[in-house]
Amino acid sequence: MKNEINIGLLGFGVVGSGVAEILHRHQEDLSHKLGVPVKIKKVLVKDATKKRDTVLAQEIFTTDSDEVIEDPSIDLIVEVIGGTIEAKQAIEKALRAGKGVVTANKDVMAQFGHELLKLADEHKCDLFYEASVGGGIPLIRTLEDGLASDRIRALTGIVNGTTNFILTKMKHEKKTYEEALAEATELGFAEADPSADVDGMDAARKMTILASLAFSTEVRLEDVFVRGMKDIQNGDLALAEQFGFTVKMAGFAKKDDDGIEISVEPVFIQNSHPLASVNNEFNAVYVYGDTVGETMFYGPGAGSLPTATSVTGDIVAACRNLLLGVNGKRLHAPQHAYTVKEDKQIIGRYFHRISVKDEVGVLSKLASVYSNHGASLATVVQHEGDNNGGVDLIMITHSISRQQHLDIMNELHNTPAVNGVVSYYRVEGENR
Amino acid sequence: MKNEINIGLLGFGVVGSGVAEILHRHQEDLSHKLGVPVKIKKVLVKDATKKRDTVLAQEIFTTDSDEVIEDPSIDLIVEVIGGTIEAKQAIEKALRAGKGVVTANKDVMAQFGHELLKLADEHKCDLFYEASVGGGIPLIRTLEDGLASDRIRALTGIVNGTTNFILTKMKHEKKTYEEALAEATELGFAEADPSADVDGMDAARKMTILASLAFSTEVRLEDVFVRGMKDIQNGDLALAEQFGFTVKMAGFAKKDDDGIEISVEPVFIQNSHPLASVNNEFNAVYVYGDTVGETMFYGPGAGSLPTATSVTGDIVAACRNLLLGVNGKRLHAPQHAYTVKEDKQIIGRYFHRISVKDEVGVLSKLASVYSNHGASLATVVQHEGDNNGGVDLIMITHSISRQQHLDIMNELHNTPAVNGVVSYYRVEGENR
Repeated sequence: MKNEINIGLLGFGVVGSGVAEILHRHQEDLSHKLGVPVKIKKVLVKDATKKRDTVLAQEIFTTDSDEVIEDPSIDLIVEVIGGTIEAKQAIEKALRAGKGVVTANKDVMAQFGHELLKLADEHKCDLFYEASVGGGIPLIRTLEDGLASDRIRALTGIVNGTTNFILTKMKHEKKTYEEALAEATELGFAEADPSADVDGMDAARKMTILASLAFSTEVRLEDVFVRGMKDIQNGDLALAEQFGFTVKMAGFAKKDDDGIEISVEPVFIQNSHPLASVNNEFNAVYVYGDTVGETMFYGPGAGSLPTATSVTGDIVAACRNLLLGVNGKRLHAPQHAYTVKEDKQIIGRYFHRISVKDEVGVLSKLASVYSNHGASLATVVQHEGDNNGGVDLIMITHSISRQQHLDIMNELHNTPAVNGVVSYYRVEGENR
Repeated sequence: MKNEINIGLLGFGVVGSGVAEILHRHQEDLSHKLGVPVKIKKVLVKDATKKRDTVLAQEIFTTDSDEVIEDPSIDLIVEVIGGTIEAKQAIEKALRAGKGVVTANKDVMAQFGHELLKLADEHKCDLFYEASVGGGIPLIRTLEDGLASDRIRALTGIVNGTTNFILTKMKHEKKTYEEALAEATELGFAEADPSADVDGMDAARKMTILASLAFSTEVRLEDVFVRGMKDIQNGDLALAEQFGFTVKMAGFAKKDDDGIEISVEPVFIQNSHPLASVNNEFNAVYVYGDTVGETMFYGPGAGSLPTATSVTGDIVAACRNLLLGVNGKRLHAPQHAYTVKEDKQIIGRYFHRISVKDEVGVLSKLASVYSNHGASLATVVQHEGDNNGGVDLIMITHSISRQQHLDIMNELHNTPAVNGVVSYYRVEGENR
């Protein structure tokens, strides 16, 4: 039996310094829980001489990753460098050296998770990644353990705090996109280059990780259908409100007999749905399971201490396994190959905002476009003019396939009475 | 290494039959995950000859509990009988026989949880009780594992589905209490005798279990301050709405340097708080942790399959531990003694609805009652008359102690201009 556990920390940015703080602050509780002390033995940084506001001793900082990973007294590697190549290599090296790994790296896990989890199995090591999705929310553990006996059918998630913060400020404080983004940057929610957030790629990576776990398969990032925030047009948020919806950047993943659909896009969520009131930088994932029904897990999607709480939770789990000698023994669900659903198999309701010429008979022309494609309409409303001699028509469909939706878009573009489709959204949250 | 795991099921009501259904429905996945099949070997029932709609063979049903608990081929006992005495005795017997136990029994866990967990430790057995609180929501596991590295400061929970269903119907469909209760009974949410639900005792038991775990202590049920639904008066729900609140039966537990406060009572929750939109029979627990910040876990609080999902999740965890030979090795947080906070240490805002005589100077008399007790007011509104020549005054305080609130109540009762205090509520959900 070990009498202490030594950690090698790769990276000392917002998350890494948070991990050091929590291990220090909750030292007594953790030692009591595990029966042995947990210590940070070495820390990999870019500049080892830099002055840092930390309880850790200056001499444990190093710029040499091998000094951390290959230290035989180190039991567990905690990877919080971020990025892809260097982080992936470090994780591989650690696993090959027989050390457990805890990572907060969504880029690595979305792209190489399957391969790394196999490597961990081969070397009988734990590879935990709770902090890669949903910051402080224990989502991975919930899908793996809490709902271990269930079969997950669908996931809807607000998994990017930056875009949710921006949309909340735009809705509740009537800020412009630019103002809200500036505030997010100032508060540290948005990166200097926010494109991965606002383009939806960050959320797509997280949905890949969640869907892989939920559906027991190896979802490929390139199978995620992604639309960014730029598709949200002026006036859409107010329109959403008028019809009882809230605009959210949401991930959606569903598995049924036809295969898997997975997407990240701006959607209209019914205000009665719990996800509609997930505000600011908070994240939430709504899980629909075969037997549990509807559950939702809500919390801070980012931030130093929340994310570090997840990392430290993983550290506790990995330490416990090490001490009990059961590391690398995760439950393996049967892995399934999957097919991506075709557009004609992906069913949803759509909100279409169409700019039309203000002339007689235009409504009947539009209505016939929908009926031509077998789509029936739940709501048709003529909205205010666009100051260019046109008016906006709002059409909300009943359930149709994405193919029908695309065909309708296409035909609308070729309809002379139509100036253009201003925007469109999938409507979510009605199956309650 | 075992080549199968045998379960003894005590009880075959809504939850027990759900467990059998899930084990059957997800048999392949579970066998794959665990590496061995999991079988229900014997089932304790009151009438073994009764015809049941189940895949289980008639001959495994028995009326003799010893036949189940003492069967040497049975590895794990699943207690879903309900009630207290018989269930507790069965759990004890199973643990003493060295068998792991999974229970869904909140009554037993609230009253005897500490004693039983110690017994489980002594006999190196697992005792899991996820289903005792929050139906299908993995709450216990989240507090034990997911937030293992954090220190929980406060919990607010809607943990009784029946009362939440009633309040939702009263708010959204303007039903009377009696109509809503009748509907809950008809849908099977409310027991034939709903008193434990509407009096708040069911929620108090669940809060005892959650707070014990969250605060690493042995909370006693009798330390929970409980007010039932009968304290909700006609018109209160509409008043709440008018001031931006929703009335919920909520449990609240908080630990700070002064000690622990724990309560179940009807409260006014700010509509912007995520708990305010937890509707119908759903449950949710809002957890405030030292480092994670705010998280919330939402899902079905009852029902056959949701609750059975939690039981089966526990079965998977217990089986895994048995197979790895690490059963009975839970993490032990340092256990703390606790003191119950005094009323003067329990701080909150209060909503007071006071029926007063419609006469000159009454407002200033009332205002001086508050200022006499050092309470400052956030809102004072004169509300419609009560048809008896009086009017209702609404006073919403800034933060005061429960002692101040009680002193004010007391003085109001002795103020000649006051007909009576119609109702009062603690105001929750503003620290966001």
